[in-house]
Amino acid sequence: MTFARNGWYCAALTAEVGDTPMARRILNQPIMLVRDAVGDVRAIGDRCPHRFAPLHQGVRDDDTIECPYHGLRFDLNGACVFNPHGQGRIPAAAHVPSYPVVERDGVIWLWPGDPDLADPNQITDLQLIDRGGRPPVSGYLMMPVDYRLVLDNLMDLSHAAYIHAGTLSPSRARRESQYDSDETSIRVHTQMRDVEAPSSQALYFGDPKGDYHSDIEWVFPGTLRQRLAMTDTDGDPDAGAVTRNAHLITPETETSTHYFWIHTRNRRTDDTAIDERTRTIITNAFRTEDEPMIAACQNYMDGAEFFSLQPLYLETDYAGTRCRRAIEKRIESEARRAAVREPEHVGAA
Amino acid sequence: MTFARNGWYCAALTAEVGDTPMARRILNQPIMLVRDAVGDVRAIGDRCPHRFAPLHQGVRDDDTIECPYHGLRFDLNGACVFNPHGQGRIPAAAHVPSYPVVERDGVIWLWPGDPDLADPNQITDLQLIDRGGRPPVSGYLMMPVDYRLVLDNLMDLSHAAYIHAGTLSPSRARRESQYDSDETSIRVHTQMRDVEAPSSQALYFGDPKGDYHSDIEWVFPGTLRQRLAMTDTDGDPDAGAVTRNAHLITPETETSTHYFWIHTRNRRTDDTAIDERTRTIITNAFRTEDEPMIAACQNYMDGAEFFSLQPLYLETDYAGTRCRRAIEKRIESEARRAAVREPEHVGAA
Amino acid sequence: MTFARNGWYCAALTAEVGDTPMARRILNQPIMLVRDAVGDVRAIGDRCPHRFAPLHQGVRDDDTIECPYHGLRFDLNGACVFNPHGQGRIPAAAHVPSYPVVERDGVIWLWPGDPDLADPNQITDLQLIDRGGRPPVSGYLMMPVDYRLVLDNLMDLSHAAYIHAGTLSPSRARRESQYDSDETSIRVHTQMRDVEAPSSQALYFGDPKGDYHSDIEWVFPGTLRQRLAMTDTDGDPDAGAVTRNAHLITPETETSTHYFWIHTRNRRTDDTAIDERTRTIITNAFRTEDEPMIAACQNYMDGAEFFSLQPLYLETDYAGTRCRRAIEKRIESEARRAAVREPEHVGAA
Repeated sequence: MTFARNGWYCAALTAEVGDTPMARRILNQPIMLVRDAVGDVRAIGDRCPHRFAPLHQGVRDDDTIECPYHGLRFDLNGACVFNPHGQGRIPAAAHVPSYPVVERDGVIWLWPGDPDLADPNQITDLQLIDRGGRPPVSGYLMMPVDYRLVLDNLMDLSHAAYIHAGTLSPSRARRESQYDSDETSIRVHTQMRDVEAPSSQALYFGDPKGDYHSDIEWVFPGTLRQRLAMTDTDGDPDAGAVTRNAHLITPETETSTHYFWIHTRNRRTDDTAIDERTRTIITNAFRTEDEPMIAACQNYMDGAEFFSLQPLYLETDYAGTRCRRAIEKRIESEARRAAVREPEHVGAA
Repeated sequence: MTFARNGWYCAALTAEVGDTPMARRILNQPIMLVRDAVGDVRAIGDRCPHRFAPLHQGVRDDDTIECPYHGLRFDLNGACVFNPHGQGRIPAAAHVPSYPVVERDGVIWLWPGDPDLADPNQITDLQLIDRGGRPPVSGYLMMPVDYRLVLDNLMDLSHAAYIHAGTLSPSRARRESQYDSDETSIRVHTQMRDVEAPSSQALYFGDPKGDYHSDIEWVFPGTLRQRLAMTDTDGDPDAGAVTRNAHLITPETETSTHYFWIHTRNRRTDDTAIDERTRTIITNAFRTEDEPMIAACQNYMDGAEFFSLQPLYLETDYAGTRCRRAIEKRIESEARRAAVREPEHVGAA
Repeated sequence: MTFARNGWYCAALTAEVGDTPMARRILNQPIMLVRDAVGDVRAIGDRCPHRFAPLHQGVRDDDTIECPYHGLRFDLNGACVFNPHGQGRIPAAAHVPSYPVVERDGVIWLWPGDPDLADPNQITDLQLIDRGGRPPVSGYLMMPVDYRLVLDNLMDLSHAAYIHAGTLSPSRARRESQYDSDETSIRVHTQMRDVEAPSSQALYFGDPKGDYHSDIEWVFPGTLRQRLAMTDTDGDPDAGAVTRNAHLITPETETSTHYFWIHTRNRRTDDTAIDERTRTIITNAFRTEDEPMIAACQNYMDGAEFFSLQPLYLETDYAGTRCRRAIEKRIESEARRAAVREPEHVGAA
């Protein structure tokens, strides 16, 4: 398996989900997202168990959805509640999966694994800067690449000095990084002394030069919290222009990835022109700089498994490699757990 | 195997085939269709046995076709009759398959299996309404889906109340269906009492409402005969506006299907405006309503075999399921027959 | 394996390679081509061993190239010479392959196999006609087909009378061919008596008719030398309008082929209008006549191995078949050689 299933993944940003059902494939499962009558987001399987039609294309009637092909109706727990045909009997197997969902920090968190294990207390706090009720700057991209290549990209931000030089990062300057990790979290702290502010931060940091501080932390399965700060050269690291960002990485399929991002800052927070400029800089960077590079790497892998290609290990790969190993360990433990349960299940049948 | 080969399939409609050779892939075999000097349709393999060039692109000279790549000439029985090279010797293996073909009811029927078994008496009479020599309204679509999903679609017309509501079918009204079958034919009779005439039938049925009668019958391998009637509410079921249609389903490949349809009616048969309107309604329904839905279902099947996904069984699936089972049985019996003949063939060699 | 690796292949024409690195996939290996400070062409692997980024997209600095993703720098022998990260240590495995390259006859010859076996003396002399310093007429096409189908096409020019009738070849006239071969070369001589000059040769042969002489020779692995001559009917075969051409066939992948061609002639050599007309005729013939036909044949092979389809053998297939067998023999001998070396390598480790 390619995915760890028992974890909270970002399924959508708050603004994406409304009263009209939408479809999103998550860990290769087709899912329908919609807000119910009281405004809560609900997530059920999008594939009708009858003939596999996409439920989200159906007619919504209160908190039921009618399959667009033959008219079976399902409630938002995934149970079939109406069969318009023949005697109208509803077969026992007439249901689609229902997924635990929590909306928090502007994010629709979804648990694609065993619902019994879903604990909302495990959802990572994004530590965003409060914008006084105004929504943060955020965005969504689908990247046609393996999600692990996206995690590699984020866990080794040394690439920013090359492909985002001057926009998201100072160019080619000397970086010092420290690493720190435990079982479900890996942290990288990087500083660059007396460098030019990249254009994304020059927008609200007054001086042309200063010290650059970057902290990024991966939390299982696909949450990255990032703090970027520009301070006066050799000044107080807590007294600068600070942004707190989230990068939320959710596998769509084995070879495509949902990439959600959220940006908040501590200066000029009411300046909508800066909001717009930031959105443009980030979208351009991810779409025209990261994505083509990651896709080119994936293309040159010719379908091979990453480690089978014996990638060169550099010091800067510490965090990305630990992140890959942590996910692998989870996948293996989920497989062992499934193997143990399988015989029990058979025994009980 | 995915296909039953020993059966009469529609290869083309009469008007499609002329003096210029055309290519059509049928049950994954590339076939060339053309009319010979006396106007009969002939069907031979389209793949030159020399270097696999498409024969239909070659120059036709009387009842021979010259391979466009190196000039071998084949007659319309598939035999190579001229080799322009070297000593001009024609190798024993220089031939392409020849397929039994019968033209009847405006249809070019082709037998892709063992020619020794081809019996024209097995061709299904389409029971169309005579138009006094005028050709019926007809059409052709290639659908990029497994042919069995198209058969499912046609054998359970309850979908029409959802995806063709108001155009081909009354909307969401109560349907009563009866089923009847034998080894090579499955029949569904459905009636809906006192419903609005759908626009396709309102064209020649005078009243806004009435009783709706639908009879559809599948005959092995891919012929569907359909009778649709609107009558006065509680009136004589034989005295209404009647259409007799054929749906002819021929696998192109494992994942694509030729769909031919023919429409005839008993009222206003000379009204060419109704002909055109009917053609538009049917083409739109098949192309913009059926095809996207069937393709969406196939997409959500992710390449899995249909029954392995444990589709929900509803009463309305009786006919489609029997149809799938009847075809499976034929495929198995063809495989057994081939297995028996194989050793004999080896022994004789 | 599909390719013989130990041989000199055309990687590019002289004019294609300059100071800016370019990428080309050869025998399925991604390769970067560039001229170094003294103007020599150098070829190294294009895939960074760190995260598999395409090196040719990086910044060039003297005779080093900086990886565009994380900034490792490689010299033009493929060795990593700078690591900008952490302690800057360069891992032992930090290198990409380096390929032997020779520039001769306007061609960049590259040896994709074992560098120890690369002997520039084995490069085939193209026997082109000297143009007094002016470059020959030449061109490049990528064809989306197996390279062996392209070799088949060239080694049996009888196809020209059908798909290039009147442009590159006299139409459907009687051809007489002789064959001659040794281990690494296969030659076909063809003559056609008293035929109309095809338009490509009418450009510089004065008379409307004459004798047509065609000599083509394949030299392992992908070099074809061609001499075409029009002479007076029954006249001196050495006294005519002569073109000497090269066709250089290099596999890109299993299903795509680099096709380079070079044209020279002995008459009206300074006439640039004829140069342009010739370029147009050849490009049109290869792109609109050969390529669609070869692609159609490949399509009808449905992914099967060529000989498994039991292609019909005609006299005109002698040269192409020998050519395929000669390449197969090389591939087998390379595989045996690799099998012998593998255990030694393991023993030494």
